[in-house]
Parts: sequence; structure tokens; C-alpha cells
Amino acid sequence: MRGLYFDGKELKYREDLPIPKREGEALIKIIYAGICNTDKEILKGYHNFSGIPGHEFVGIVEDAPTKELIGKRVVGEINVGCGKCSYCASGLERHCPYRTVLGILERDGVFAEYTTLPEKNLHILPEGISDIEGVFVEPIAAAFEIPEMVHLEPNEDLLIFGDGKLGLLIAQVMKLYMRHVVLIGKHKEKLKLAEEWGIEGVLLQDVEKIGRFKYVVEATGTQSGFKEAIAHIRPRGYLILKSTTASGAELNLSPVVVNEIHIIGTRCGPFPPAIRALSNRWIKVTDMISEIFPLNRYKEAFLRNNEKNTIKVIFEI
Amino acid sequence: MRGLYFDGKELKYREDLPIPKREGEALIKIIYAGICNTDKEILKGYHNFSGIPGHEFVGIVEDAPTKELIGKRVVGEINVGCGKCSYCASGLERHCPYRTVLGILERDGVFAEYTTLPEKNLHILPEGISDIEGVFVEPIAAAFEIPEMVHLEPNEDLLIFGDGKLGLLIAQVMKLYMRHVVLIGKHKEKLKLAEEWGIEGVLLQDVEKIGRFKYVVEATGTQSGFKEAIAHIRPRGYLILKSTTASGAELNLSPVVVNEIHIIGTRCGPFPPAIRALSNRWIKVTDMISEIFPLNRYKEAFLRNNEKNTIKVIFEI
Repeated sequence: MRGLYFDGKELKYREDLPIPKREGEALIKIIYAGICNTDKEILKGYHNFSGIPGHEFVGIVEDAPTKELIGKRVVGEINVGCGKCSYCASGLERHCPYRTVLGILERDGVFAEYTTLPEKNLHILPEGISDIEGVFVEPIAAAFEIPEMVHLEPNEDLLIFGDGKLGLLIAQVMKLYMRHVVLIGKHKEKLKLAEEWGIEGVLLQDVEKIGRFKYVVEATGTQSGFKEAIAHIRPRGYLILKSTTASGAELNLSPVVVNEIHIIGTRCGPFPPAIRALSNRWIKVTDMISEIFPLNRYKEAFLRNNEKNTIKVIFEI
Repeated sequence: MRGLYFDGKELKYREDLPIPKREGEALIKIIYAGICNTDKEILKGYHNFSGIPGHEFVGIVEDAPTKELIGKRVVGEINVGCGKCSYCASGLERHCPYRTVLGILERDGVFAEYTTLPEKNLHILPEGISDIEGVFVEPIAAAFEIPEMVHLEPNEDLLIFGDGKLGLLIAQVMKLYMRHVVLIGKHKEKLKLAEEWGIEGVLLQDVEKIGRFKYVVEATGTQSGFKEAIAHIRPRGYLILKSTTASGAELNLSPVVVNEIHIIGTRCGPFPPAIRALSNRWIKVTDMISEIFPLNRYKEAFLRNNEKNTIKVIFEI
């Protein structure tokens, strides 16, 4: 089959990849797959991954143990637990210490014609959601992990650092929960888009004008973003971390103790609320699509993904 | 009066200090005052403090607007709010942005014959608590800030890093809340003391044998302590920070996001539960007293405080 293969050093387009097969899992034909910044990290060596990257997708079940699934249009949760440990037993496969993760950890991903996943990871996409919108279910689910982890008071304001693809989705999800959402970023065009959705956009250069918030989301994945975020939290407030890419650097936790701040890491989230939000048209994603590429133009796609004003780049498989 | 005075560079014993006077506040004659590691930081330049340091004390009210208070034996909360802002209005003077802090921030402390505090900061010490035990009320209150900030499940275990004076008090308070408490430290003698209180002591060199916990308290104030603590938290667990002295250093927050860890900073705590715990003999403090010095032997006292096997050093004023 056609697909992108990362050998640990270089990403290559190949047409000779075998169609994947995993005992007891569904075989899915990929329609669209989205580029996430985690993919960029993986191609830099994160998790020492080798194989087919990519974890955001919409596809059609081509084969499955449960025959009723065949032909269904699906999206899929990316963590596959061992099914035996205490985390799996309590529904927390996302934290199973023996898990594999689609296109991230010891499991081939979706930048290819086919992938496999256990049936329990699949969610059927309702008719009201288009194929390409479905690509956004996985990152929207990651945004819904915030209310999963933190009690958000609806009569409060929330501040987000980072107007990237994830920051823009988080802003929309948080708008469902909070009185007012402020998004800090470096990109006028992206902030303008957020303004159209009823979110207040503020350029990073004007951050000094912004006061302190009870809830702050760090979605830049940079140390400077982290420091700015900490500086804008009220005593006893919440800093929600939404990026795995924070690199080691000088960091003084003294203000966290003095101001009794809660820092909460959040990662993958629940799919059903993401599907519900898209079905109900509560979240707009099509304006976020910057360009669609075929797989064999992957080099252009990743270059486009890195451009300043790009939001979402998608592969049409 | 006699007292220790820090001019921003050097600590000196003086006998010519004026008796303090603050409009509307109580004048307190100090009986005992404890050395806290925050005092060490202050003498290194923390908060740019100058004046009389020290914030842990037991004293007798010598004068006060409310005459009934005169002659009473008291301990005192160290944060003095402005009384006008929203934090003060909601009982959170500890987070008032305009606060002064006894011996720490723009307010003379207790390493002297007298200090002053607003009456609302004072708590009368019940008869069952001795003078010298009363010195421990303030740091025990800091330990009670943990259950104030974090929901602790009583049928869980808790791990503490740091067998210093604060770590030993936290271990005792946590023993009231948790099924089992494990204390990691470098000092056999201190861990032995903890074992006598029903706490499991483990030498840092054996930390690899220790598994992961839902609740971990970082009370070493070092970056290596922080890293070890993070490595011993279960997914979705809690890291409770209990030291303001963490210096900036390489720090990767990626495991916090991947494992969805909650980090919670905690600082000064409520006095009433600390007084109640001492009154009920739930917490043992006299075994923690290493040596008692008069004020004019302050150099020896601070040297003693720095020694490996020292726990608590106290001034008898």
C-alpha cells in the first residue's frame, strides 16, 4: 500500500508497504489524516518512534471481527491499552503502562492507505459531520480533556497562550464552558479567526495589558509560554498544560508555591463530547484548514505546516 | 530591646532596637522563636528583606486594643492583609497582593524581645500546649495547608521527599489523613524518629525500591527532589510542592502532561487545626528540638541549624 514511513531518521513515501494486520483488530481504509505538531516532534526523535506516523484520521472499516462495523465511517482513539492492568480495568487505557499509541508509540499510524485499531477504540461518525471535519475529532477530544481533568466554574474567564491549531480548538471548546475566553498569540490572522468565533484575541506583544486569571491554558509548548502563563494566574488559580513539547530550561517553581497554583497536565481526551460538539455545530473547523495534500507531496505538506500562517494541513489519502 | 537585625547583608545582635509599635496592633513579648529554613533563604537575600527576621513564635500579649487579650499566651498567623481587597474580603489574607509577612516581607519579625501583629492574627494557646511546643504551631499549620488544598483519599498511601524539619511535621500530619505514609530522606536518625511515629522511613539511596504513589509531597526544595518526586507519581496523581526554595534548573514538564499529573503549590496554612492536633497530642514535636540558644548566640544557632543531624533550633528570648 501507499504510505509514509519513518525509519527513525528520515520520512519517505513508499508504495510497497504491507497492508497492516493485527489479530482481533479492525482494518480501516483511511480517507483523510491530519498533521499534528506531535508528528513534527516524532520526526525529530520523540518516543524513538519508527514506522508509519500520524494519528488523526477519518476512515472506513474494511474488515472487522464484528461484521456490522464493515463499511462504517469511523474515527479512532489512539491509545491501545493492554486490557489487563488496573488502568485498563478502570477505563483509563490512555494511562496503561503497556499501551501502544497510534503513530506515536510502537504502533503504525495513519499516514497510509490502511491502519488497524481494536474495535473498542472506534467511534462511528454521525452523518452530520463531513469526512474532513472528522479529522478534527481527535484534537477536539484533547481539548475536552480539560473539563475532564479540571472543575471549570462557568462564571469565570479563561486565558489561553498559543494560537496554533490546538490553541484555536481549545479556545472554541472553552467558549462552551466559560463566560469569556481570551486567546494570546503571535498571528493576527489566527486571532482574527478566533474573534469571529466570539473569542477575544490579544497579540503576545500586548500581554502586559492582560490581568490575572483563575484559569490559564498553556498551549505554546515553550518555556517562555510557560513563564508568561504562570505570571498571569491568580493566587490559587489553575495552569492547564496542553503540550508535551516543553523542553527543559530554567524554571523557578517558587511562584507556584507562593501563589498556591494548581498545575494540571492534560493529554488525550474523550471522543464522545468532541463528536457531539461537531454534530451540534458548536465548533467550527473548516475555516482552520490551510491546505490538503496527497501523501506523495508530504515534503510540501510538512513545509506548509511549518509556515507562520498555516493552521491545519491535511492529507487526502 | 534585644534582637537580631538583618541590614540586607549581615545579621547582627543588637541591644538598642526600639520596641516596635504599629497602630491598632497588639504588642507581644516573645518567649520562644523557631528557626525555619525560610529564615536561611531570607539571610541569603530572598524577598530583599531587611529588619528583624523570624516568624515562628510563642509570646505573651503585653498590650492590645482589646484589653482582655493582655497577658494571654499566643501564637500568630504571619500574613497581614490590607483588609480591603477581594482576597482579604474572602478570608484569603494569605494571598492579599498588598500583604506584609512577619519577618519575611516588609514587617519586622520575632527574633527579638517584642513584635506586633493585628489582633485578628493571634490565636490563644490552650493550656495543654507548652510554651516550646507552641513554636511548632506555624509550621504544623503549613502542613495542614495540604488537606486545605488537596482532596486526600484516606484509603491511599502518600510519599514524602525530604526528612527535614518540615518533612517530619508533614509526615505526622499526613499520618492523620492517610492509610500509610512513606518518608524519603538522607538522614538515618531522622527516619528512625519518623518510624517511632508509625511512618515508614526509606533512605534516598533506596528510592528505586519504592513504587508509584497517587500522592507525593516534595519537601526538599531541590530540583533533584522535584525530579525524583515526579518519577514516583502514578498517572493522574498529585505532586504537592511544600517549599519556596526550588531554584531554577533544567526541568522537563513533558511527564506532567503525558501522565496528567496535578502539581499543587501550598504555603502557609490554617492555625486552628494545628493547635487542635497539638492539644490532642496527635503530633509529637519535643523530640524534634535539637538545641535551644539565647539570641546573642545566634551565630552558633544558625551553624547548628545547618548541621546534618539537626532538626529544630529554637531561640529562648
